[in-house]
Amino acid sequence: MKRTLINELKNKIDQKVLLKCWIGNIRDKSKIKFLVVRDMSGQTQSIALEENCDPASFELISNIHRESAVEINGIVKKSEQAKQGYEVVIKSLKVISPSEAKLPTEVYGKIESNLDTRLDNRFLDTRRPEINAIFKIRSQIFKASVEYLDSNGFTKIATPKITVLGLESPGEETTGSELFTLDYFGKNAFLAQSPQLYKQMFVTGGFERVYDIGPVFRAEKSHTTRHVTEFTGIDFEMGFINDENDVMDMVEGLMIYITTKINENCKEELSLLGKEVPILKKIPRLDFNDIRKILKEKGKEVPEDDDLDAEGEKLLSAYVKEKYGEEFVFALNYPFKKRPFYTMKSSEEGTKSFDLIYNGVEIATGSQREHRIEILSKQAKEKGLDLDKMPEYKKLFLYGCPPHGGVGMGLDRITEKLLKLENIREAILLPRDPERLKP
Amino acid sequence: MKRTLINELKNKIDQKVLLKCWIGNIRDKSKIKFLVVRDMSGQTQSIALEENCDPASFELISNIHRESAVEINGIVKKSEQAKQGYEVVIKSLKVISPSEAKLPTEVYGKIESNLDTRLDNRFLDTRRPEINAIFKIRSQIFKASVEYLDSNGFTKIATPKITVLGLESPGEETTGSELFTLDYFGKNAFLAQSPQLYKQMFVTGGFERVYDIGPVFRAEKSHTTRHVTEFTGIDFEMGFINDENDVMDMVEGLMIYITTKINENCKEELSLLGKEVPILKKIPRLDFNDIRKILKEKGKEVPEDDDLDAEGEKLLSAYVKEKYGEEFVFALNYPFKKRPFYTMKSSEEGTKSFDLIYNGVEIATGSQREHRIEILSKQAKEKGLDLDKMPEYKKLFLYGCPPHGGVGMGLDRITEKLLKLENIREAILLPRDPERLKP
Repeated sequence: MKRTLINELKNKIDQKVLLKCWIGNIRDKSKIKFLVVRDMSGQTQSIALEENCDPASFELISNIHRESAVEINGIVKKSEQAKQGYEVVIKSLKVISPSEAKLPTEVYGKIESNLDTRLDNRFLDTRRPEINAIFKIRSQIFKASVEYLDSNGFTKIATPKITVLGLESPGEETTGSELFTLDYFGKNAFLAQSPQLYKQMFVTGGFERVYDIGPVFRAEKSHTTRHVTEFTGIDFEMGFINDENDVMDMVEGLMIYITTKINENCKEELSLLGKEVPILKKIPRLDFNDIRKILKEKGKEVPEDDDLDAEGEKLLSAYVKEKYGEEFVFALNYPFKKRPFYTMKSSEEGTKSFDLIYNGVEIATGSQREHRIEILSKQAKEKGLDLDKMPEYKKLFLYGCPPHGGVGMGLDRITEKLLKLENIREAILLPRDPERLKP
Repeated sequence: MKRTLINELKNKIDQKVLLKCWIGNIRDKSKIKFLVVRDMSGQTQSIALEENCDPASFELISNIHRESAVEINGIVKKSEQAKQGYEVVIKSLKVISPSEAKLPTEVYGKIESNLDTRLDNRFLDTRRPEINAIFKIRSQIFKASVEYLDSNGFTKIATPKITVLGLESPGEETTGSELFTLDYFGKNAFLAQSPQLYKQMFVTGGFERVYDIGPVFRAEKSHTTRHVTEFTGIDFEMGFINDENDVMDMVEGLMIYITTKINENCKEELSLLGKEVPILKKIPRLDFNDIRKILKEKGKEVPEDDDLDAEGEKLLSAYVKEKYGEEFVFALNYPFKKRPFYTMKSSEEGTKSFDLIYNGVEIATGSQREHRIEILSKQAKEKGLDLDKMPEYKKLFLYGCPPHGGVGMGLDRITEKLLKLENIREAILLPRDPERLKP
């Protein structure tokens, strides 16, 4: 007999079914036993009655442990008591793979373990439908990003993770403090802390539009709810642009597509989480000089050459929510002092840059990049860097480098913020931080 | 004026267009100048005539260097001399970003640089339409894989790359010779050489079907056309399977989907490369014991406990091509001696395993995994391993672990082999090997 997935049961009333599932909970009332069962598609109630269940199976249910993987033969019956309006009446039950009696973290009912215990036993934690739902939604954000970027002419590139080239730190053979060092056959190599150099490389490499979605590494010894040492970046870069607005248009389109797809494909998951993700319409774009005035009126001073701190981002979001009814906002024209040397300037102090801020937190950072080598070289000097010491990067601008710009977004943070989670670790299956390297 | 992409020109005969492009080649015949120009969408011919081109632009063309990025205003005209049947008659031309006169690797015409020079200047190499085409096709293989796996209920997981857990080597805190070691805030960590453990973790973690596509690291000091130290793995794993045939069905479906999508979406690219990728119909499945007999008839002895060497894989493919007319074949039932300890046995010596061989080369390796802890523990011992020394892995089998299996495929190798390239480096933008860490 073919397996029936739990989310197909509603179409099988009065039919025989074969379930393959985990047992979430057992209520044993001697002549009647209730089992909550779960598979990849959902969770449902099943019931074993002494009068019509195979006696060996009926006996077995009293001795089985929760989280065992089982096979159930039964019939779907309408039921007024069952929450979903139907339940599976068990004819026979077989253990596929037993579970130990004591679980290192609870899977059914209210979450009582702390996050560390849950992460130590993440594969049990993700059996919870509401935790599972977070990662199903995350998977859809990933897929939507691939679809959207591909359909807009972007080529997926695999930027190398092992490298000796960097951009954020002085010099080419970089030893920046945020880099993890690797023993590469007796030489030193580093884990890429950004695909920036490589994205720019293949814009001018003729693809014009490139993206990568993959791990990014930061050796930051931070212990906050926002920092991890390995995260998933959604990075794209586009050539022959007019200015940074072309990049923002693409980011906006991507976020509209993502929020639309979540609503189309993740109804069950959102309902399990009790969350709503509004479909984005338009993202307001506010110049930093105006933001400074807006925040000043709210009693928050932002110095000329500074950017927004966490409080500033929250105040700005509150203003945008009130004024435009939107949860997203682009903050434009960040001070050059706060941006990497390769950011194109908009004035002596300003840059053609932007942050995308969602409900008080930055989820994307982008800009038009400087492609004119003399100016790039000058901007590097202003930051105490020397373009001549980055020959692999410098080379990109010598052979017809088009105007271009791009953005780096965090898949983990987008998932966290869209679902209003409290810690980025809740949006990562197996987070890495200075203390956590396992499982 | 809005930019026209080169692949849209055929629909713009007698219309004004604005091109933004690179100059591939210039033939300067004093009163008439031919320019080959190229953008992300293709390549075309343009022509400047003294009588109707802006004089300053006409002068400029004689002094411009190839590979400069330019803006061209012109009119699309039918032309019998032009290869495509039309050409852009240049009205004016402006340099967006100039190129130096001497290119470190040639971009136009026959490839004359060796692979090393090309890789050192990869961004110029990928401006060649036929090299660019390889990575456009690779990007479509990536996207097709995401689409196919998602539509079959797989959840995209991000398996961690920084870890202290391994599976291929003895012990949990592994120091296997194929692992890169990392300085992790003063502690030792490793780069994951396979997502195996994590895929199994989230099958039993309730997702049942999971996949990841991302970097995999192998510290192999090999100098062959087949080995790199960082490659892109397409890995998936599925639970509640009947046996390894369920996994092979999924691999077969994926390869059918990939070859179909390449033919649908990459016509131009295949034609640039002069390659065909036949759409797969069915993959024959041959037991290793039968393969041994087949190869023996062809004069090739394969010992009982050995698997196929490169010559054996070639002979087998030739046989399958002749007998079934297929370029793909599944070789089943590899000896346990040649497979990892977690592979489920089919007999005392055999395993429920398979390789997918394409035109003489293995492009995927998979199996049903052993999920019964006593047998798994026994099989570890046979390999000189101790399951108790891998507590994080052992734990996966204690709480209802369903029967499951999966596969690891190489995106680089699939691209290489489908396009019949000669070196895996040709299918990787920036390959890494013991000598190559740049750019």
